[in-house]
This record gives sequence, C-alpha cells and structure tokens, in this order.
Amino acid sequence: MVTVMVLFDSRGGLVEQLAAAVAEGVRSVDGTTLLYRRLDEAAPKELPTVDALIVGSPNWSGMTGKLKDWFDHSGDLWQTGELASKPGGAFVAGYSRSGGTEATLLQLLHLLLGHGMIVVGLPWSDRMRVSGSYYGATAHGAVTEDDREQARALGRRVAELAVRLAAAMLYTARRVMRTGPHSPISP
Amino acid sequence: MVTVMVLFDSRGGLVEQLAAAVAEGVRSVDGTTLLYRRLDEAAPKELPTVDALIVGSPNWSGMTGKLKDWFDHSGDLWQTGELASKPGGAFVAGYSRSGGTEATLLQLLHLLLGHGMIVVGLPWSDRMRVSGSYYGATAHGAVTEDDREQARALGRRVAELAVRLAAAMLYTARRVMRTGPHSPISP
Amino acid sequence: MVTVMVLFDSRGGLVEQLAAAVAEGVRSVDGTTLLYRRLDEAAPKELPTVDALIVGSPNWSGMTGKLKDWFDHSGDLWQTGELASKPGGAFVAGYSRSGGTEATLLQLLHLLLGHGMIVVGLPWSDRMRVSGSYYGATAHGAVTEDDREQARALGRRVAELAVRLAAAMLYTARRVMRTGPHSPISP
Amino acid sequence: MVTVMVLFDSRGGLVEQLAAAVAEGVRSVDGTTLLYRRLDEAAPKELPTVDALIVGSPNWSGMTGKLKDWFDHSGDLWQTGELASKPGGAFVAGYSRSGGTEATLLQLLHLLLGHGMIVVGLPWSDRMRVSGSYYGATAHGAVTEDDREQARALGRRVAELAVRLAAAMLYTARRVMRTGPHSPISP
Repeated sequence: MVTVMVLFDSRGGLVEQLAAAVAEGVRSVDGTTLLYRRLDEAAPKELPTVDALIVGSPNWSGMTGKLKDWFDHSGDLWQTGELASKPGGAFVAGYSRSGGTEATLLQLLHLLLGHGMIVVGLPWSDRMRVSGSYYGATAHGAVTEDDREQARALGRRVAELAVRLAAAMLYTARRVMRTGPHSPISP
Repeated sequence: MVTVMVLFDSRGGLVEQLAAAVAEGVRSVDGTTLLYRRLDEAAPKELPTVDALIVGSPNWSGMTGKLKDWFDHSGDLWQTGELASKPGGAFVAGYSRSGGTEATLLQLLHLLLGHGMIVVGLPWSDRMRVSGSYYGATAHGAVTEDDREQARALGRRVAELAVRLAAAMLYTARRVMRTGPHSPISP
Repeated sequence: MVTVMVLFDSRGGLVEQLAAAVAEGVRSVDGTTLLYRRLDEAAPKELPTVDALIVGSPNWSGMTGKLKDWFDHSGDLWQTGELASKPGGAFVAGYSRSGGTEATLLQLLHLLLGHGMIVVGLPWSDRMRVSGSYYGATAHGAVTEDDREQARALGRRVAELAVRLAAAMLYTARRVMRTGPHSPISP
Repeated sequence: MVTVMVLFDSRGGLVEQLAAAVAEGVRSVDGTTLLYRRLDEAAPKELPTVDALIVGSPNWSGMTGKLKDWFDHSGDLWQTGELASKPGGAFVAGYSRSGGTEATLLQLLHLLLGHGMIVVGLPWSDRMRVSGSYYGATAHGAVTEDDREQARALGRRVAELAVRLAAAMLYTARRVMRTGPHSPISP
C-alpha cells in the first residue's frame, strides 16, 4: 500500500470541495491509503511517512501565509530529502480565471520541487478550456463538475505514479535477488 | 508626444482583436502616438525609439517561438538599455482559462524586465473574475466585451505612465533651469 | 516629498543587510522620506499611505509564511486599490544562486502586481553576472559589495520613479489650471 | 530498454557542455538508450518515440526563439498526448546567476508540463549553493565540475524514473496475467 496525503488550507469552501474530488481520484486507485488533512488537523511529522503529496490553497495572490508557515515549521525535510523523488501535485481555487490561479499553483509546485519531489500536473484535454491547468486542478468562483473531474484526474495521476514507483521497487527487488544490487535513485 | 508600440504575433485572430482594444486604450490618452505592429510588419530598429511597449502573443505553452526569435534578433537592447526604465505591458489570448495564460504573460513580462522596463499590469476589479490578469490582458476562446475593456485599461495605463514620465522630465527640466542639475534615473 | 517603505522579514541577517543598502539607495534620491520597517515593527495601516514599496524576504522556497501572512492580514488593499499604480520592487537573500532566488523574487513581484503596483527591477549590467536579477536585488550566502550596489540601484530606481510620478502630478496640476481637467490614471 | 532524449540549442558551448554531462548521467543508468540531439539534428518525429525528454537552452531572457519554434512545429503532441505521463527535465546555461536562469528553466518545465509530462528537478544538496536549481541543472559563465555533477544527477534522475516506470509496467503486466486488467494511467 502507498500513502497519499491530500493537504489543504480551506476558507470559504471551494478548496475543500476540490480536495474532496482529488481524494476521490486517489481512492479510485488500487493499492492506496488516503491521508486527508485540513491544515489545522495536519501534523508535520506525518509528512516524511507519505509516498505522495497533493497540496491545495486558495488563490490569495499566492498560497496563504498560513499554509506556507506550516511548511516553514515542518522541519528540514527539504534539506534531509525525506520527500525527494516522491510524486506531488497541486490544486487552487479562487475568484478569477487568470488573476493568480497559475501563479498560486506554481508556488505550490515550487514548494514540492524544493523538497525534490516529482511534479505531476494535468495533460491537455478539451476540458482544460474551462477548467484545470498544466500545473494542477482549479476552480473559479464555484466548483463545477468539470473542476471535479480535473481534480479527480489529478488525484488519480499522482496516486498511480506512486503505486507504479512502489511496484517498480518490488520488481527491482525481485530482479536484484537474481542479478545483484541495483543502484538506488540518485539523491 | 510619447510613442507607444503595440507589437503582437497573431494567428487565428484573437490576439489581434485584443491588440485593437489595447490600441484604443493607448489612443484614448492625450499626448500619445501609436505604433501598431503585427510581428511581420515590425522592424527591430523601431524598438529603441519607443517610449513604451505593449507585447501580445497567443498562448502556445508560452509565447510563440516566432515572437521570441524576433526579439532574439532585435540587437543588444537588453544590454545597451535603450528600453530601460520605460513602461511595458503584455496581453495573451488562448483556448484555456488557466492552461498557460498567466505563464505566457509572465514570459512576456520577463522579456520586458530583461530589457530593464517598468512593468504595468491590471489592478483588481470585479471584471477580473471573468477576464484579465494582474499580469496583463487576456482572452479565452473568444474576445468578449470584458476582455476588450481590460485590454483598453491596459493600453491606457501604460500610455498614461509614459505620458507622466515625459511630463516629469519636462517638470524636472524646468526645475533644473532654476535649481541646477538633477541626477538622471539610475541605470 | 514622497514616502518609500522598505519592508522585510529578516532572520539570519542577510536580508537586513540588503535592506540597509536598498534604504541607502532610497535616501540618495532628493524628495524622499524613508519608512524602514522590519516585519515585526510594521503596521499594515501604514501601507496605504506610502508612495512606493520595496519588499524583502529570505529565500525559503518562496517568501516566508510570516511575511505572506502579514500581507494576508493587511486589509483589502488589493481590492480597494490604495497601492495601485504606485511603484514597487523586491529583494531576496538565500543560500543558493539558482535554488529559488528568482522564484522568491517573483512571488514578491506577484504580490505587488496583485495590488496593481508598477514593478521596477534591475536592468542588465555586467554586475548582474555575479549579483542581482531583472526581478530585483539578491544575495547568496553573504552580502557582497556587488550585492549592495545592486540593492542601492534598486532603491534609487523605485524612489526616482515615485518622485517623477509625483512631479508629473504637479506638472499636470499646473497644466490643468491652464487647460482644464486631465483624466486621472485609469484604475 | 527505455529511450531518453537529450535535446538542446547550443550557441557558445556552455549548454553543450552541460548536455554532455546530462548524457553521462543518462548513460550511467542500466537499461537506457540515449538520443543525444543538437536542435539542428533533431527530428520532431522522434519525439513521440522517447520514454523521457531532457531539454536545454541558453538563458536568453527565456529559452531561445529557435528552440520554442522547433516545438511549435513539432506537431500536436501536446494535444494528442504522446509525451503525457513521461518524465522530463531541463538545463540552462547563461551569463548571470539570478538574471533569468530560473525563469528560463521554468519556461522549459512549462513546455514539458504542457505536454503532460512528469517533471523531475534536483533536490537540495550543499552543491546547490553554487550550482543547480530545484528546476534543473545550470551553469553561469563557465561549466564547473559542480555544474557537471548536478547535470549528471539530473540525467540519472530522469533516466531512473523512466526505467522504474517501465519496470512498473512489466510488473503490472505480470500481475495482470494473474489478477486481471489494471487501469492504465489516467490521461
């Protein structure tokens, strides 16, 4: 089983609605355990234990200070690398279509990359005309069914990558039993 | 008179429709001369002569290579600073709301900042819920009246800043006649 | 007189050293009053009164949560526009050259643009090979004389733009007395 | 065997020196075939056949127009998704430390994300103080041994992820033979 954390700061509800859809996407993938965490309920000590992390924020001209502050006080994981080479993703909800949605997603992706994580977004589909970003899942003003579908796709994609990487480790482990040591993923 | 160039790469028409609205905004400001240039008609040698520059591109997962290539071959203005400390702005049209609109605007702003220009975007208004970005003017799928209004506002804002800076130079020049030399804007 | 605020969150000292150099640049411009504010000393109610704002942060894979939180609780200026059309700039110090310095500067510029501010960076000069960014002033590991010179240039540039805009208003006011009303800068 | 393409636009040599080190990193991973391509030698029709893609550009206030133009004319892969869910990475060389290195890396990552790719950067290490970025490998002014080591690490990381994903598919394929169909990675 791989553990996928969905972590978000929600005020006003849109972000939480997106988070619920991201969580549905995670749960739809066999072999995953979901950690669903509002920021107030999350414990930094859980972070190093997860196999994947999907972070959500309202668009407050960037992520909320409260969310960033939580990460600022989550220890030195960025330095010690407990999250390095694990999959991550992001989602954002706000008032406006192009007034910072991508910028806020990018701040979240930067945080994930700052931990050495592997970034998963959304590929093009016609649905992206009205919802979603290459950088992650989105909502503007309200959470529509298109928004939920993109959020589910994001949850699925991150979870499937985590499951595949775990499977690869099993496969490699078996292969190693036959062929000798295989170099670990470079730090 | 200050000269404001509106320079854009248009294919498919949305960018050109936005450009026309940006141009309306520029023309609405007393004391401005408009240089309206499709990329194929623009000459790099005009660039150093303008007092302000507003650049537009379709969202092709970034600005078009053709537009970037034009700048790559526009001489060493970024190095010699002919555009430094002049106002600039950006506009982008594409298919999707959050699928690279901000990222493409940001690439254009980066190009302007790379020339040392002063960047002007759009401030918040309720209209930004459906159109426009802090980074500049936008359109998604079609050019709406809200898009045109944001594009006009961008043209006005850049042109008014250029006019004000020219006025300040006049004011300073007169004051200098009375009080002695005033240091030029630092490079 | 125009008022320029230098506002920063400093831990470890590099950011404060840069802030001091930015402040020198501001003070070198005639007609400016400096408000020099460590985050803990700054009052959000001062923000609407300034004519220009230069913000600094350490590179903590983005600005600090504490700094963002301060802005998150500074009222609805982004919405009401008290800072709109005023000049702004940014500076960042951190451990690494390309490990988030630009990304953190960009987060600060985004915050300024989110208030409708006009963004001033640094133009190219040979000094940028070792210090500074088109996005603002920088330091890596220690604050060098090159870093200080770039920080002074940033302070000067923002302050001079603020002074010029104020001069333009005076010039316009005099001209209006002779020629009638002039449209205010568009919101 | 998985195929990893290293694709770059080099003028002046720094980017090509980095590319050579990225290629070393790729070759150090068992089970990989390297496609090493200067832009002038690359054929867009090769793109859909690769299992991973690492792209390099000089910092010309963004990637070169020539490189972007190549992608603009590489067909509709962004739309049809041939590269979706495959690993990608980026590297950039230029004159200055913070004068657009991250911004140019980000433009390359945006292009990869625009194809739906999974983005791999570099995790923190003390070496990042002087070379490399969370966004990829870097060089400033000259290519140092630290730059080469970061570039090798990037090549290794992307190649190892590609190898692991291929292993996961084999593992899944075997498991499916025993347990029935497994859902493909969501588009």
